[in-house]
Order: sequence, then C-alpha cells, then structure tokens
Amino acid sequence: MNHGTEVLLGLFVVFVGAQIGAEIAQRLRLPAVVGEIAAGCILGPSLVGWVTIAEPFESLAEIGAVFLLFSVGLETRLEDLKKVGRVSALVGVLGVILPFVLGAAWARLSGFSTAKAAFVAAAFVATSAGITARVLQDMGALQRTESRVILGAAVIDDILAMLLLGVVTALQGGEGVNLLNLMLVLLQAIGFVALIVLVGTTVMRRSSPLLEVPVNPLSPLTISLAICLGLAVAASYLGLAAIIGAFLAGMAAAETRQRHTLEKQMHSITALIVPFFFVVTGAKVNLSVFGSLSVIGTLLIVTVLAIVGKLLGCGAAALPLGRKSALIVGMGMVPRGEVGIIVASLGWQAGVFTETTYAIIIAMSLLTSVVAPPALGALLAREAAQ
Amino acid sequence: MNHGTEVLLGLFVVFVGAQIGAEIAQRLRLPAVVGEIAAGCILGPSLVGWVTIAEPFESLAEIGAVFLLFSVGLETRLEDLKKVGRVSALVGVLGVILPFVLGAAWARLSGFSTAKAAFVAAAFVATSAGITARVLQDMGALQRTESRVILGAAVIDDILAMLLLGVVTALQGGEGVNLLNLMLVLLQAIGFVALIVLVGTTVMRRSSPLLEVPVNPLSPLTISLAICLGLAVAASYLGLAAIIGAFLAGMAAAETRQRHTLEKQMHSITALIVPFFFVVTGAKVNLSVFGSLSVIGTLLIVTVLAIVGKLLGCGAAALPLGRKSALIVGMGMVPRGEVGIIVASLGWQAGVFTETTYAIIIAMSLLTSVVAPPALGALLAREAAQ
Repeated sequence: MNHGTEVLLGLFVVFVGAQIGAEIAQRLRLPAVVGEIAAGCILGPSLVGWVTIAEPFESLAEIGAVFLLFSVGLETRLEDLKKVGRVSALVGVLGVILPFVLGAAWARLSGFSTAKAAFVAAAFVATSAGITARVLQDMGALQRTESRVILGAAVIDDILAMLLLGVVTALQGGEGVNLLNLMLVLLQAIGFVALIVLVGTTVMRRSSPLLEVPVNPLSPLTISLAICLGLAVAASYLGLAAIIGAFLAGMAAAETRQRHTLEKQMHSITALIVPFFFVVTGAKVNLSVFGSLSVIGTLLIVTVLAIVGKLLGCGAAALPLGRKSALIVGMGMVPRGEVGIIVASLGWQAGVFTETTYAIIIAMSLLTSVVAPPALGALLAREAAQ
Repeated sequence: MNHGTEVLLGLFVVFVGAQIGAEIAQRLRLPAVVGEIAAGCILGPSLVGWVTIAEPFESLAEIGAVFLLFSVGLETRLEDLKKVGRVSALVGVLGVILPFVLGAAWARLSGFSTAKAAFVAAAFVATSAGITARVLQDMGALQRTESRVILGAAVIDDILAMLLLGVVTALQGGEGVNLLNLMLVLLQAIGFVALIVLVGTTVMRRSSPLLEVPVNPLSPLTISLAICLGLAVAASYLGLAAIIGAFLAGMAAAETRQRHTLEKQMHSITALIVPFFFVVTGAKVNLSVFGSLSVIGTLLIVTVLAIVGKLLGCGAAALPLGRKSALIVGMGMVPRGEVGIIVASLGWQAGVFTETTYAIIIAMSLLTSVVAPPALGALLAREAAQ
C-alpha cells in the first residue's frame, strides 16, 4: 500500500470513527465530543492501533483546533459581552479563579513545579458553553434568567481562560517564574487580546463592505480564514497558544455583517476537520494508565475538585438570584469540554504533562461533561415541577 | 520556532498566496487556478522557497484533489448525461481519442515506454468544463446550442478521462503491457465505474430520506464526506486513482435530494482546502527547467498538439451544427485544467514523469487555459456581431 492510500485510509477511519462515536454518544444523550474522543481512545495505539499519532494527523488535529476556536469566537459578540451585566461577569470571574486555585493547589501538592502547576490548573478553568447550551435548549429553558447568566458568563470565562492559557504557555519558556517575568507575560497576553478585541473588531466592523470583493463570492470566508491563520501564527510567535489568535480572529469576524453566512460556512469546515482534533486527542490517551487504582483515585479527586470549583465559585457569584438559581448556574458551568481538552493537548505537546497527567485531564474533562448534563436536567425539571 | 508554529505559518503562506494569485488572475480575466499555480511556482523551492514539498502539505494537497473531484462529481448528473444527445456524446468521445492519440504519438517519439506514454497522453485528454462555463456565462451565451453541446460533452469527457486515468495508472504496475493485462485493467476500471454510476446512484437516490439523521443537522454532509473518502480508498486499493472514487462518490451524492445543500457546503470546504492542491502543484514545478530553449520548444509543440487535438476532434464531431458552431465547440473544449494537472501530479508521485515532463505538462495545462478563453470570447463576439 503506497503512502497516499495509507493516508486516505487513515482519514477514512478517523472520520467514520468520529461520526459513529458522536452518533452513539448523542443517542445516549451525551455530548458528541465524548463519543469522538472515545472513538479516538479505541482506535488509538493503546487499543486497536488503527490511528497512529504521526503526520499528517498531528497537523490536521492542530488545524482542527484552530478552526474550532475560530468558530467559537465567531459566536462571541462584543455587544453581548457588554450586556451580560454584573452577575454574569462575577460568575465568569469567580468561576475561573476558584477552579484555578484548586487545580494549582492540587498540582503543587502532587509535586509539579509552579510553572507546570499553573498549566495543569489552566485545564480546570474553561467551561464548555456548547454542552450546557444544548441541555438548556433541550429543556426549553433558554429564556430563563439562569440561562442568560450562564451563557454570558461562559463568554467571559472563555476570554479569561484564553488569557490564562496565554500566560501559562509563555511561562513554560524555562526562565523560571519571577514576578517581573510574570508581569511581562501577562502584559503581552493582555495587550494582544486587547488590541484585537478593541481595534480588530472595529476594523472588521468598518471594513465589512470591503469583504465583498466582486469577482469571488467566497471572499468573506477566504479573507476570514486568512485572518484566522495569520492571527494564529502571530499568537504562536508571541509565545501564546495559536488557538488564542484563532479565537480572537473569530471574535473580530463576528463583528462583520457577514457573520451569519460565515457561521454557516464554518459549520461545513468544522464538520470535516474538527473530528480529527478530537479523535487524535483520544488516540493519545494511553488507556493502560487507568489499570492502576491510584490513578483512578487521582482521577476521582481531580474530577471532584473540578466540579466543586465551578459549583462553589459560580454558585457564590450567582447567590443574589436565590439559592436554587445559584445551584443551576453553578451546575451549568461545570462541563469542561473543547477548551480544557485543548489545554491538555497543548500541555502534551509542550512536554509539560506526563502520559498519566494527560490521560487524567482528558478523562476529567469528559467526566464533568458526562455528569453535568443529567444533573442540570434534573435541577431544571424539579424547578419546573414546583 | 516549534513545529506547530512552522506548520501554521506554512498554511498561512500557502493560503494567502493562493488568494492573491487567484485575485490577480481574475482581474487579468484568467482562470483563478492559473493564479494559484503561479503563486505555487513563485513560493516553491525553485524561486522564493517559502513552500516546501513535505508533510503535511503533501497530504493536504491530496485531500484537496479528492474533495475537488468530489465537488466536480456533485455537479455531474446522470440525467443530464442521458439528455445530451448524440452530438455531445460524439464531441466527448472524439475529443478524448484524438488528443490521446496525438499525446501518445508525441510521447512515444520522445522516447517514453508504451506504459509511460499512455500516462503522458492521459494528461492531454480532460477538458476543464469550469473554465469554459465561466467564459460562456460572462458572454451571456449559456443558452446557445454550442454551450449545451460543450457542457454535455465535458461531462462525458470527464468520465472517459477518469476511466482512462484508471487504466493508465493500473498499467504502471510494471508487469508490462500485454493484451490480457490491458483488458483486465480496463474491465476492472469499467466495472468499478459502472457499479457506482449504476448501482451507487440508485442506492443514494433511494436512501435520500435516511440521510436526515434527526440529531445531527450536518448528517447529509458528513455521510457524503465519509462515502467520498471510502470510495477514494477503494479506488486506490484497486490500483485506480483515488480521485476517481471521489468523483464517482460525488456523482452518487448528486442523485440525493440534498444535492443543492451539499454543493453549497462543499464550496466552503473546497475554498479552504483546494488551494493547497494548486499551490503545492505549482511549487513542484522547477522553473529552472525552462531555462533551456529546447524545453520551451517542446512545451510549444505539446501545447499546439493539445490545442489541435481538441479543436479537430471536437470540431469534427460538431460539424453537423455548421462550421462556425463547430469551431466554437472545439475552442470551448480546449482548456485543460484541474484534471490535466491532477494527472501530472499523479505521474510525478508514481515516478513516471521526470522533472522536465512534469513542468511541461503543468505549463501546457495552464497555457491551454490561458489561450482558450480570449479566443472563445472573440469567436462568440464575432458571431453575435453578424
């Protein structure tokens, strides 16, 4: 079998595996990502061995993550951010701080250096709004106050997580953690984010008409894709994660009047390419790690910390809405998804995580996403029945 | 710069280079592919050296070719094939035979073995309907008899070219050319094509409602992409070109009632991924080859043969429409594009073509596409003025 055929066969196996995994997960009322990652675990070297971690799959996975975050950014509007109000902002901020502190404390106690512990903790932070939004939609609860607070907070949470990821990535430079260094990295990350969020969005909004180059009906898409790749490279050069650039490019593109068309077009592209990210992510998990009771114990501790961090942090911030609503908001913020998994795979690439840490963080992200939807559904149903 | 950043930078350079090339070409009223390949020639190792021929770009180029041919297939309807009538069928068939014979004769005289000469000749065959369709559209001439004949013939031409490509690819097995072998290969190619064209299209037409899996709005797209990859692998296993499988998968998907949605969705995907095919194709051209007068002489001979083959072959078949119309039909069939270029890159991969042959065939494909549109435009304008 020649190289070309082998690559095509690999693409076919990954793509079909992802679809079957997603379909099974959705029939079990679990998020599709859970199924795609599980497909990767099964097809990967630690079990069946049909998917190997080599080129071009590594690069396709990275491209998948970049376009995934671009499309997440595309659904993040500056205007909505301004509207979410104090409660949402507080939920977002506390929901980042508490899980980060708990994660960092656990990682430090487990023997990670400060810089590495910060990276591990970053994986505790980001809520996957997509999973919660899906549950709220299924329960017909999107118009409730709690839902608006959750979705607003998730956006702030995403931006803070990106900022944090930028800082912890840059910290791995190896020069050690001193206060000056930390401040420089933080300033650089904030500067890059602020530049694009403030200047970039305005430029895109104003240049909206220019995107319609007459000869080429696909111009808004191709120009946006070019900007996405360009900012991903720029972020990467600055020592930030490439996906931060992609996310910000998405936010800037969300300000154009072509955003709805872009969202639709991105759906086709992400349908093709994002499965590669999740399957390769799953394939990297060495399942044999979970043969040890102590690792399973660690996984349970980490998962409980991740759940408690969001429940308490977000719940406390949402207390003004009443205790029941605070519980709903807290539970709605529990699922970690794409972003937590991306942090894990960046940590793997940077050599920060051991095989075991990587497997635990992926499993934790999946567990929070599996546990939260039924719990949130039960809370909402109890509310409705009263 | 780490590997991830380097890959992203490469993606950015290729993608932006392709867009700029396409834009410049279109402003010069040339087909966009001409600009994308030219961008590749400039960015490639023989000039600027910003694009190298390595993973993941090789694989992205291959994926690009696969999805390009899938979307060409998606615009090819069995029903239209049945409607085109005798003249179109004859134009298609003669327009394949004469260029093939001329190409093979030239290649044999230039010292290629029979099997290699057949491969070279296959690159003379396929008309790029897209380029001609664009010219006809720009001139408001799509409803003319000649236009219908051309577009019908282009479909037949595409299928014959695919069949021929299957045969010549399989012939490179090295067992030499004997009649039995040739018949087996031909039967295998015809069998595969017939199976999918006849059985596959019917299956797709009937299973159209099944494509709407309720939970996932993207199902028709993801299922079609999976079928595309699967048939590409199957074709590749049979020793045919992978793109033949992709083309046939497209033809089968064109029979579903979701074809218009699929076409739109494929536009987004091809906008992202097809530029990689053309830029990498251009990057493989060693421009220094054209430093020799004898190579330029060969290029001119080959280009003239390619033009004469279509003009005479298709023109003779279209004579029943009158001499002027026959000339328009012949000129409309002259542009070689995507398919000719794909044959060249397959020949490169298979080690059939030398660097010089590859460069000449790419340049010939480009020249026919550059020469034909203005000539066709002039013929149509002269007709209209009379």
